[in-house]
Amino acid sequence: MAGDGKLVRVAVAGATGYAGAGCVRLLLGHPNVQLAAVGSRTQAGRTHAAVYPGSNCDHVLVESINAADCDVVISALAPGDAARQAPAWLSQGAVVVDVSADFRLKSADTFANWYGGPHPCPDLLSQAILALPELRPDEIPGASLLALPGCFSTAAILACGPAATHHLIEPEVVVDGKTGVSGAGRSAASAYLFTELNESVKPYAVTGHRHRPEMEQVLSELSGGPFSVTFVPHLVPMTRGIELTCYLRPREGVTLEQLRSLYRDQYEGAPFVRLSEQPVPSKQTSYTNLCWLSLEQQGAHFVVSAVLDNLGRGASSQAIQVLNLRFGLDPRAGLGGDTQWP
Amino acid sequence: MAGDGKLVRVAVAGATGYAGAGCVRLLLGHPNVQLAAVGSRTQAGRTHAAVYPGSNCDHVLVESINAADCDVVISALAPGDAARQAPAWLSQGAVVVDVSADFRLKSADTFANWYGGPHPCPDLLSQAILALPELRPDEIPGASLLALPGCFSTAAILACGPAATHHLIEPEVVVDGKTGVSGAGRSAASAYLFTELNESVKPYAVTGHRHRPEMEQVLSELSGGPFSVTFVPHLVPMTRGIELTCYLRPREGVTLEQLRSLYRDQYEGAPFVRLSEQPVPSKQTSYTNLCWLSLEQQGAHFVVSAVLDNLGRGASSQAIQVLNLRFGLDPRAGLGGDTQWP
Amino acid sequence: MAGDGKLVRVAVAGATGYAGAGCVRLLLGHPNVQLAAVGSRTQAGRTHAAVYPGSNCDHVLVESINAADCDVVISALAPGDAARQAPAWLSQGAVVVDVSADFRLKSADTFANWYGGPHPCPDLLSQAILALPELRPDEIPGASLLALPGCFSTAAILACGPAATHHLIEPEVVVDGKTGVSGAGRSAASAYLFTELNESVKPYAVTGHRHRPEMEQVLSELSGGPFSVTFVPHLVPMTRGIELTCYLRPREGVTLEQLRSLYRDQYEGAPFVRLSEQPVPSKQTSYTNLCWLSLEQQGAHFVVSAVLDNLGRGASSQAIQVLNLRFGLDPRAGLGGDTQWP
Amino acid sequence: MAGDGKLVRVAVAGATGYAGAGCVRLLLGHPNVQLAAVGSRTQAGRTHAAVYPGSNCDHVLVESINAADCDVVISALAPGDAARQAPAWLSQGAVVVDVSADFRLKSADTFANWYGGPHPCPDLLSQAILALPELRPDEIPGASLLALPGCFSTAAILACGPAATHHLIEPEVVVDGKTGVSGAGRSAASAYLFTELNESVKPYAVTGHRHRPEMEQVLSELSGGPFSVTFVPHLVPMTRGIELTCYLRPREGVTLEQLRSLYRDQYEGAPFVRLSEQPVPSKQTSYTNLCWLSLEQQGAHFVVSAVLDNLGRGASSQAIQVLNLRFGLDPRAGLGGDTQWP
Repeated sequence: MAGDGKLVRVAVAGATGYAGAGCVRLLLGHPNVQLAAVGSRTQAGRTHAAVYPGSNCDHVLVESINAADCDVVISALAPGDAARQAPAWLSQGAVVVDVSADFRLKSADTFANWYGGPHPCPDLLSQAILALPELRPDEIPGASLLALPGCFSTAAILACGPAATHHLIEPEVVVDGKTGVSGAGRSAASAYLFTELNESVKPYAVTGHRHRPEMEQVLSELSGGPFSVTFVPHLVPMTRGIELTCYLRPREGVTLEQLRSLYRDQYEGAPFVRLSEQPVPSKQTSYTNLCWLSLEQQGAHFVVSAVLDNLGRGASSQAIQVLNLRFGLDPRAGLGGDTQWP
Repeated sequence: MAGDGKLVRVAVAGATGYAGAGCVRLLLGHPNVQLAAVGSRTQAGRTHAAVYPGSNCDHVLVESINAADCDVVISALAPGDAARQAPAWLSQGAVVVDVSADFRLKSADTFANWYGGPHPCPDLLSQAILALPELRPDEIPGASLLALPGCFSTAAILACGPAATHHLIEPEVVVDGKTGVSGAGRSAASAYLFTELNESVKPYAVTGHRHRPEMEQVLSELSGGPFSVTFVPHLVPMTRGIELTCYLRPREGVTLEQLRSLYRDQYEGAPFVRLSEQPVPSKQTSYTNLCWLSLEQQGAHFVVSAVLDNLGRGASSQAIQVLNLRFGLDPRAGLGGDTQWP
Repeated sequence: MAGDGKLVRVAVAGATGYAGAGCVRLLLGHPNVQLAAVGSRTQAGRTHAAVYPGSNCDHVLVESINAADCDVVISALAPGDAARQAPAWLSQGAVVVDVSADFRLKSADTFANWYGGPHPCPDLLSQAILALPELRPDEIPGASLLALPGCFSTAAILACGPAATHHLIEPEVVVDGKTGVSGAGRSAASAYLFTELNESVKPYAVTGHRHRPEMEQVLSELSGGPFSVTFVPHLVPMTRGIELTCYLRPREGVTLEQLRSLYRDQYEGAPFVRLSEQPVPSKQTSYTNLCWLSLEQQGAHFVVSAVLDNLGRGASSQAIQVLNLRFGLDPRAGLGGDTQWP
Repeated sequence: MAGDGKLVRVAVAGATGYAGAGCVRLLLGHPNVQLAAVGSRTQAGRTHAAVYPGSNCDHVLVESINAADCDVVISALAPGDAARQAPAWLSQGAVVVDVSADFRLKSADTFANWYGGPHPCPDLLSQAILALPELRPDEIPGASLLALPGCFSTAAILACGPAATHHLIEPEVVVDGKTGVSGAGRSAASAYLFTELNESVKPYAVTGHRHRPEMEQVLSELSGGPFSVTFVPHLVPMTRGIELTCYLRPREGVTLEQLRSLYRDQYEGAPFVRLSEQPVPSKQTSYTNLCWLSLEQQGAHFVVSAVLDNLGRGASSQAIQVLNLRFGLDPRAGLGGDTQWP
């Protein structure tokens, strides 16, 4: 479809949320893509540009996406909504790239435990691929239903995945996450008012966050055995950005230099993952698809810090990265954004 | 001195930094204190009110504090400066309460390792008391040289101390800290410009922060054996506040309910330490002497979150709290500030 | 009531909004006051402390205030609600201090134009006193229905009032206001999410803001003739604080020194209004009842800058200031908060 | 040079400040440009990427720019430094685009008054063109020394210029500005620490800011007679962005609709100036070259609000916009950045 020079026709469902609108912006600037349709249940009938700040997209929002005219639907809907619509999109022949959580977990029971109800289409779970562009790139090209890991999970998997795969660490890690407020989305909620959050930091989901089972599932798969994660996220007074500090226990005799060497090999040639000798401020990734990692040791722990933009690499731009891989496009196409500082 | 109704005469050295100026403000409102002198090497000759935003203190700043007219000197100087001046103050008969790091560590070698040079007066180290108002209150009344633990250490010790003392946990913890920018002080530095920090979070001192040996020293003393801490602090775009999330491993068979029960007992009657059933936003402690703790479990870890104001309970108001204990005053005197929200 | 040493019994209606909760906090620390009752329509039945972050108030919230047991009701309700309840409170013999907008405007028609509907009790408008503690203090002691000017209006009146009264300026001013987000209250609204506001500034109500008729009404009364105000407020990414820059045209021959001299005389002895030779950052007033003014000249204009805390002097603490004046208490009672910096 | 398809060779002096580094980033992505050299007095010898956060520029920084190999030097130096080096660059045949203030004012005396000393090369002032891409585009193509107006001036001229040119307003305006902190640059200064600025707004340069004579010079030229500006800027706790609210007095009989019609005509086809029916938040322009204007009326004033990114349209991207015009390139080349929200 793309190899032959035709434009990939892409629709975006949930196009007026932060993640969906980010996809729209990137797709408009993508040289190999035609934006086919944009959907919004609440804003249907108005143009995207009339609804979303700074948008240049003149498409009229539709209530639901008709996938017959698309090669791919990127879904950025609330939990459950993608699962309710995906079967129709797939049956119309479209590829589905889901930014939400509906197709990440392999187990319908686990989904039900964490998302408060039965999965709308459990039969699709076995078919869905959790896309890991750097760690399992070969799974992506043939897939028709691609789930993106959550923003925290993306960071944790990039930070711990190579060490888990190659058994340099014990199969249990502590992951302490910090996120900007946009992770909570764009819906009105007094808890996310400026006044309630500025000049403050706090942990949440202390007994368990929905991204934890994703992390454990992937790291178990990569390591070939049970892998446990203790994960506590924190809300930080900023709009964008995630920083994860991961505390890993080296296997007997494993050195920091071995760890660094492995990561250099793993991510060599990966355009969007970079290693730093200094901890990297999360702002260095804002509005980009980059993930920066730094690897250090303190006492008995390896300390791996990962930073990325929760709405970029953690959502919108990762969707484009996966789309590029899926359709055989240049991996960097439409994703050229470098760091804008400050 | 205070028991007889006389005012305690207090001088503040380093009165134009954030910690020192915070002490000045509290002392001016303290019913049992007379502010005797305020010192500043760089601003001597001007009034405090002319130099510090919003100050009501009309004292003229002096270059160095003469302790002959004081009952106590609160020192909020740069590392090393308090140690150079403390011997003179002590010989003049004053009590010294040091907000800086000069008298926290028992070992002069450890000090030299972390602070880049030999200790100016190592002989005083054995005499100094590291003040822990809630955990070792009895040490304070008779002491002449009192060191305050650092802001992170205060939070870590309040969060982990009871569990360490009573051996409910393994003697090693992971402590992930987040701090507002004021922890870096008031000196010009491009790294702490608004533009470099807003909309960003990052770890620092990843291979070891100066507060780590304090935490390990105290938790080892409390537990009666070696105790290791892995501690990574993070800079968050806010002015005040610290949040620590501590990952503790329960000893075999110890339950969360046992942990909570211990902490309830430990802090019962303590006016400034409170337990919450929900994680507490750091802003809830801003401009107060409060430390809020929440205790939860996730998988194999107890998760203890502590929040406090790094310039309040982490510096200025803790100095007043210790002064109150030292001189037999009402523990709450001069410290009445409740939460101002938002 | 207070002159005889008895405590003034105060109820707060709307006690879980920012302005009402600020009153509750101040009243709990007020030496001459007994907090009699706290009201909240949405949270009735729970304690204030259970509902509001950091509150130490253990009173159970009631659905509506019974004023029979109070000397005064401070009302911090939504527009219209105070007007609906004030007649009952007054008939029960209580003084009413209204933080909302219901009794500020003298004209029921003007109220209807700006607040979208007829005034619930227009007969009370002639009886209401718009409290100006520094400029018309004599009106307050005998009043039973006291309205506070809005936060912007308070700043504008303190900034322009003396010049208007004494005809040093032409009767028309440009007032450019900047406010923290808390001016919008604590209700959920996507427009006030952290993510929508951080790193951004914008004007609003450009064709006219509700505080404009208040400013014009008071400045006309003070100057004894028509007085026009062009006022544009701007939303700034901070929680608290207002800055107004007022552009005044001197009457022929009037000098800056005359203006400054007038303001020094006007505010001499006023504990909460201060003149500065430098522009003052709004943060210097946070959590205080202070208003700082600076007076300068640029070309053809006097430039008067006023800063205050929109929730302090602009709401809660001004209510206490007025209460003190009304009941003959020490003007500073319960309002001692000095600047906490940073 | 460009019309023939050759790349324009561009050097950037002052490449490690915010404005210069922004130019470097844009030039690296510009299809018609070759980045020829980057200069930094303090960081010479290191690569740009090693010095500036997130930079992808591997050029080694040189102490001073040799213009012999360049078609154009973009200078983003401190005041006075561009004027000291420009004569050499011009004599080497390069075009100079100066982001600093050295060549904006026509009068050497005015420069001396506002910048604290005599102009280093007053003879060049008459030769310099103050670039106004939308209002005086014809002056740019033939110029060899091009000055950019300051960030505030750019906004004020775009906001008031058409009305001044066509005499729809009286020749005096009040301009109230709000700026992010990056306007102060990247040098260490305690006044711009995060801790001193967050949660605060304040005016500065109240008696006159350096951009005021620029505004008056240009608006006088455009209107063909004396034009006075009263301008007060304010520092707002954000990194990027400027909002100006301009208070204009209509000439007798001029209506808002006439004003709007004029601006629609003036900016029709201009790719970077847009008119909005609502006030626009400054964040909508962050990292873009856009300037949004809104035009309203309140009482006796037209109220024109302008927002732009002080480091984008106010510095770096405007330099590229002018470079494009000077060399006959596509006006949008290298400037494609759309709004990224939030």
